[in-house]
Amino acid sequence: MSECVFCQIVAGTVPSQKVLDTERVLVFHDIRPQAPVHVLVIPKQHIASAHALQAEHATVLMDMHLAAQQAAEQLGIAQDGYRLVTNVGWHGQQTVPHLHYHLLGGRQLQWPPG
Amino acid sequence: MSECVFCQIVAGTVPSQKVLDTERVLVFHDIRPQAPVHVLVIPKQHIASAHALQAEHATVLMDMHLAAQQAAEQLGIAQDGYRLVTNVGWHGQQTVPHLHYHLLGGRQLQWPPG
Repeated sequence: MSECVFCQIVAGTVPSQKVLDTERVLVFHDIRPQAPVHVLVIPKQHIASAHALQAEHATVLMDMHLAAQQAAEQLGIAQDGYRLVTNVGWHGQQTVPHLHYHLLGGRQLQWPPG
Repeated sequence: MSECVFCQIVAGTVPSQKVLDTERVLVFHDIRPQAPVHVLVIPKQHIASAHALQAEHATVLMDMHLAAQQAAEQLGIAQDGYRLVTNVGWHGQQTVPHLHYHLLGGRQLQWPPG
């Protein structure tokens, strides 16, 4: 069994509050939300981070962005706007070594982004 | 002539401090850097935002991420890590209506991301 918690969420052995479940992508609520809407968009396949993406991942990367759009519509933040963030490594504060995009909205986001 | 400043940067009619120039993607320094390394990764074709991405953009979206990886290596932040951010609309603080990923690194990035 995978030791990756996001792989376990994909497998259903760790619970999550799901928003969207597509062929290649899962969207679920962040357990430590930083905004009124804060969900994670992850590929079902294990990819370590944005720095590990390769050309062969073009379809799943695109699907992640389409799922983010759909989640933004579904959660009512598409019109006012939102932010997509992915962290790589220590300086980025990446906490789970499985690629994930944070989708944040429902409030005015500030600058700089952390 | 396009009124979009990023299209003008692609066309070379507005100057920029370029980091990478590939077939479909340009990477250049942000004029208001928020970190020791802060560059923008943009598609050469005009796409309004991440919310305007469509399935046909899979290749250029992938190329943007590969260019971000290459820029991170080139600018010496790949090992310590970095953050990729894209803003959509008002709440995201999107300032230029041409898709762009902010690549930030060279310092500890904070949480929340804005």
